[in-house]
Amino acid sequence: MNENILPILVFQTDFTYLEGAVAAMYGVVRSVDRNVEIITATHDLPQYDIWSASYRLRQYMPFWPAGTVFVSVVDPGVGTARKACVARTADGYYIVTPDNGTLTHVADRHGIEEVREIDETVNRLPSTRGTSVFHGRDLFGYCAAKLASGKITFEEVGPAYSPDDIVRLPVHSFERRENAAEGIIEIDDPNFGNMWTNIPVEELHKAGMSFGDMVMVTITKDGEEIFRKPVRFDQTFGNVQKGDVILYNNELMNAALAVSQGSFKDSYCPRYGPEYHICISREEAE
Amino acid sequence: MNENILPILVFQTDFTYLEGAVAAMYGVVRSVDRNVEIITATHDLPQYDIWSASYRLRQYMPFWPAGTVFVSVVDPGVGTARKACVARTADGYYIVTPDNGTLTHVADRHGIEEVREIDETVNRLPSTRGTSVFHGRDLFGYCAAKLASGKITFEEVGPAYSPDDIVRLPVHSFERRENAAEGIIEIDDPNFGNMWTNIPVEELHKAGMSFGDMVMVTITKDGEEIFRKPVRFDQTFGNVQKGDVILYNNELMNAALAVSQGSFKDSYCPRYGPEYHICISREEAE
Amino acid sequence: MNENILPILVFQTDFTYLEGAVAAMYGVVRSVDRNVEIITATHDLPQYDIWSASYRLRQYMPFWPAGTVFVSVVDPGVGTARKACVARTADGYYIVTPDNGTLTHVADRHGIEEVREIDETVNRLPSTRGTSVFHGRDLFGYCAAKLASGKITFEEVGPAYSPDDIVRLPVHSFERRENAAEGIIEIDDPNFGNMWTNIPVEELHKAGMSFGDMVMVTITKDGEEIFRKPVRFDQTFGNVQKGDVILYNNELMNAALAVSQGSFKDSYCPRYGPEYHICISREEAE
Repeated sequence: MNENILPILVFQTDFTYLEGAVAAMYGVVRSVDRNVEIITATHDLPQYDIWSASYRLRQYMPFWPAGTVFVSVVDPGVGTARKACVARTADGYYIVTPDNGTLTHVADRHGIEEVREIDETVNRLPSTRGTSVFHGRDLFGYCAAKLASGKITFEEVGPAYSPDDIVRLPVHSFERRENAAEGIIEIDDPNFGNMWTNIPVEELHKAGMSFGDMVMVTITKDGEEIFRKPVRFDQTFGNVQKGDVILYNNELMNAALAVSQGSFKDSYCPRYGPEYHICISREEAE
Repeated sequence: MNENILPILVFQTDFTYLEGAVAAMYGVVRSVDRNVEIITATHDLPQYDIWSASYRLRQYMPFWPAGTVFVSVVDPGVGTARKACVARTADGYYIVTPDNGTLTHVADRHGIEEVREIDETVNRLPSTRGTSVFHGRDLFGYCAAKLASGKITFEEVGPAYSPDDIVRLPVHSFERRENAAEGIIEIDDPNFGNMWTNIPVEELHKAGMSFGDMVMVTITKDGEEIFRKPVRFDQTFGNVQKGDVILYNNELMNAALAVSQGSFKDSYCPRYGPEYHICISREEAE
Repeated sequence: MNENILPILVFQTDFTYLEGAVAAMYGVVRSVDRNVEIITATHDLPQYDIWSASYRLRQYMPFWPAGTVFVSVVDPGVGTARKACVARTADGYYIVTPDNGTLTHVADRHGIEEVREIDETVNRLPSTRGTSVFHGRDLFGYCAAKLASGKITFEEVGPAYSPDDIVRLPVHSFERRENAAEGIIEIDDPNFGNMWTNIPVEELHKAGMSFGDMVMVTITKDGEEIFRKPVRFDQTFGNVQKGDVILYNNELMNAALAVSQGSFKDSYCPRYGPEYHICISREEAE
């Protein structure tokens, strides 16, 4: 067998490496197949944060080869009635996940061509039927390994259901006006303390803002102002002084806020979500 | 050579990724052999905590293929007289580790068929003889790579000694009475804040408790009560409300305590060990 | 193609696994080539700490096979005028990195034979030309994957420039006197809380100190004494009592300070750098 033609398995969970969960899950994969490649996307997703799971898939999935099988397990409802599924996108990726909202961004951006509920009677690790709390190991990891290694076809995952029935979290849209754009802080970069908006940078360009301009940034939380300052709009952190705020074009081509070698998150905006409204305006900063 | 028949190398340590130790250890493996697979079980074990090292091996080892070589380095006595060894279990796994208690659970549950002391004169990375503080790199990683890649046989690890002489930590037993069971909090799930007992769930069933029942849970530390509440005994977190305590069947089929989407550890029982006694009783909750 | 002859790709960054950056970077590698091996050295380097990036390379690079391609991305100046380069050492390693000081230790110890600036017009992931903040994914990861997989030669990385022009951080030297040696605390082991000096243990031997001796250790910060104690000079932590300070021979054969199963860093010396001067003296402890 030539392992090079097998799809890659890419895992993201909120398990951490503090105990043996990841090792048990990967062991199941290796017991199914010795050749399929195992890649750790992350096991440090925020606990129970389905929004982050969905967003991170969106962030990195397009950089992988078509055919890659992603396993995403952020699963506060493990063992309850929520479906366990495998989705196939229109561009040929597979996502193995609880159907609890994880597919929100991928469905929007890639389109879900087909989704199947995992048949636990055949695609669950048989020795684990007595426990209900670790589907990463017993169901998602096991079924994904069978699929990626070619031991089952996509059709053999289980019965198809309508992609329209996939659980989706609400996604908020931005709005462009003359000389301004409005949206929300939709996620963070928790490592570097940057906050990412849902406003594409090209919308700022269309609203008349150019790299190098000063723009007025106003953030409100539930209507109350928490940040309002003229900020440099530029391409990268190094173009402002250490400690200065910058509005920049992030790696997904959206407007984002940073403090150069500091933390915008810690300094100004500790959380994200639809209650954090942002307005970026051209004229007010002038 | 067909790398697919080589055993897998699975590593667990308390090294973290904060500096270059893991990378040096894995580099040694790759310098011995280019094909043997390297898997990270975890490098986030609690520092110097041999009990955790032993318990985590027990937790994930059975999910790996027979023949897998586990390297466990939690080694507060590095460079002292404690033995460095390779053990072979009755079911064909290998564990490369300081003989300091790491083999406790594996010896109990899998049985150690043979154990050999690593001969440092041949199975230590020659260039590192001047330093005594990093056996993960210089001895365990190097010897494990030689063994897994077939460069040495198990017999060539070094001289055998009696499995009866393996260092074992004390393991505490549970007790079932009519309508109740007693035991200890023997380890935690530090990520989700759950506390795991040493009482198999089937013992609760035998004592007359069924999923869905309310049961009385009492935890004492050194004889002093630190938790006493009627708690729902059920299969998974999703069956109680967010914030409620649940006694559930964990992934190793033992009784465990959680706060749904919260932390039992932070709320009620910060540590584990034989001084944390637990009684689960049927009648008292009714 | 036989993947076993491809060089290994070893990554170190300050990205953490808190979001999707690592997964995006590794996806780019896999989209370039399915066979080149991806190894995580660490993604937990201290943020923006180029000194650590340089030191860690020095710490683990020699343990890897010649030909290994290291990708180091600690890049506070991403998107600015600093060069992006690939260096080849005299002993045949490759380092793909911003030329911002990362090559300091490798240049000193291995020698840089040739260095080339990455030509962004051909060795940057074409789809990412609009963003300037994630060269780990768009430039370093992509170019390294092309190089390691043989899709480009080293010459095709881009134009060569003089190794004399590589950016170097200042490195501080030690001094041996009769019965004493002086130097600095040049880095930490942040996991175990040990502090590493720039003084080779053999210099202490030459100054008349032997393992088992008590020696006087004095640390000053900007001239002010912060630690002064007689300390046991020995080979490993287990030779002193838990909680005792030890001066030991670290894995790089330099003198280092630890508290056995404790933290010298937390107890006595929270940071490192040239302002932390250390004197180790024989006579004063007697």
